[in-house]
Amino acid sequence: MITFLSGGTGTPKLLRGMRTVLPDRELCIVVNTAEDLFISGNHLSPDVDTVMYLFAGILDTETWWGISGDSHISHELANRFGAGEYITIGDQDRAVHIARGALLRGGKRLTECTRLLCERMGVLATVLPMTDDEVATYVSTPEGDIHFQEYWVKYRGKLPALDIYRRCKRHPVATDEVIRALEESDAVVIGPSNPVTSISPILECEGVHSALRDQFVIAVSPFIGDRPVSGPAAELMEAWGSRPDSLGTSLLYQDLLDVFIQDVRDTIPVEGAQRFDTLMVDIDKSIELSRFILELIRK
Amino acid sequence: MITFLSGGTGTPKLLRGMRTVLPDRELCIVVNTAEDLFISGNHLSPDVDTVMYLFAGILDTETWWGISGDSHISHELANRFGAGEYITIGDQDRAVHIARGALLRGGKRLTECTRLLCERMGVLATVLPMTDDEVATYVSTPEGDIHFQEYWVKYRGKLPALDIYRRCKRHPVATDEVIRALEESDAVVIGPSNPVTSISPILECEGVHSALRDQFVIAVSPFIGDRPVSGPAAELMEAWGSRPDSLGTSLLYQDLLDVFIQDVRDTIPVEGAQRFDTLMVDIDKSIELSRFILELIRK
Repeated sequence: MITFLSGGTGTPKLLRGMRTVLPDRELCIVVNTAEDLFISGNHLSPDVDTVMYLFAGILDTETWWGISGDSHISHELANRFGAGEYITIGDQDRAVHIARGALLRGGKRLTECTRLLCERMGVLATVLPMTDDEVATYVSTPEGDIHFQEYWVKYRGKLPALDIYRRCKRHPVATDEVIRALEESDAVVIGPSNPVTSISPILECEGVHSALRDQFVIAVSPFIGDRPVSGPAAELMEAWGSRPDSLGTSLLYQDLLDVFIQDVRDTIPVEGAQRFDTLMVDIDKSIELSRFILELIRK
Repeated sequence: MITFLSGGTGTPKLLRGMRTVLPDRELCIVVNTAEDLFISGNHLSPDVDTVMYLFAGILDTETWWGISGDSHISHELANRFGAGEYITIGDQDRAVHIARGALLRGGKRLTECTRLLCERMGVLATVLPMTDDEVATYVSTPEGDIHFQEYWVKYRGKLPALDIYRRCKRHPVATDEVIRALEESDAVVIGPSNPVTSISPILECEGVHSALRDQFVIAVSPFIGDRPVSGPAAELMEAWGSRPDSLGTSLLYQDLLDVFIQDVRDTIPVEGAQRFDTLMVDIDKSIELSRFILELIRK
């Protein structure tokens, strides 16, 4: 069993390769939930959904969110009627939000909801939300403090990010399922996801840090030079007080890391880092990177 | 202007005829909201929706609820995933619930939400929820006290009804819009809807009774003999302590009524009642009944 820490784009791209070289049942994914929110009365868990859909074989891999070929009847009409849904929600995707909303309101933990949804979608990998507690990443902007989804989807990351922080009623605690997976895996891979908004929320969950201390941990940098491969990582890293590059990323993870992988083209050297082509432009590149990671683990 | 008191089936059938003999702009419909509920995080107002859809020309007139030709992608998948939605909700229908839920959460009154939705659907009739307050009809059954929608849709009215009552935080008050419509109309028609679950909730709203006292009020009985034309009226009338027939209905409305119309076939005579064919099996029958009502008003 290998466990991955994942956000919603970079790490799923890696997982798409991984599942061609390892059986789904041997993959466990601990997923960021700090972007979750209730929208239109139902529960959106963007990174969990992307990972579930990937393993269910229904992910839209053009956008890396939503269900391939989904219709948008309810979304388009609701907005014509004034709903103001700023996130595009497909009808099938909404069905997942509705079911999860109902299960949560019925008292189930997010972990249980996810397990039920995975079962019904035929997902064989183990998909674990990082916590059952509510926590959200907020961005301070000149327009006020807004949920990260609003910052990224509604404003397309175009507002100046002055600060970034987590909002929660109590400090989130990693679930027992997460701690067990981290401790019992053969290795843990920190995927090439946004360090501020995807990976750090997982590392911040109580129990994760100590569970990883004695583990073999490999991280893949989401940066090439001073730009992330995708998404809003650079500006947010700066707002967070980190260097927006591989060096900044490696420093964030340094007390956990055994191996750090950065792109062959990366102009910001990280001492002791392994170099590989991390730009997963297609599934073949994902498979090559997956094989490289597995070799490092087996050594 | 003629104002109608309406539930979700009998009166809309009459309205379908009315709108062929009078322009939509001259029709005002005060609609029961005691069957409203939040379902899957959004706001269902079954009778308001039926009336809006009728005037928007999109009502499914096979079932007299929902949108004609609607798809059920989100409903079917959500239930496969454990949502437990016991009411069939089409994707377009859901869009209306989503928009209304969002508008209500945004602080709009139900009356304003309905006006906005009607505008965007091109509805020219005036559709007024009876109140902006929350009130729900509950049925006491051996399984416990349940919302009327649950009794009627989930259990298909097959549980014994021991009692029936309204549940509300404060006694519902008719909106100013409703009072003005009732007072300023040329006449008020109490449509052939369920007296217990559709009409009485409207009459119970504070202000309605006195607004109707000096009005010309015509009621159409929803019963023929001891059976209602459709729906669960008979058993519920009994649970409510009323005779389940035209006589019981006329007694409920007696201090308001100028004219009571009952079916030509009705074996339960009501003194002074007008007789007409009230069984609206098709639109022609609805038109004939509409013309008859208009003649009575113009006399």
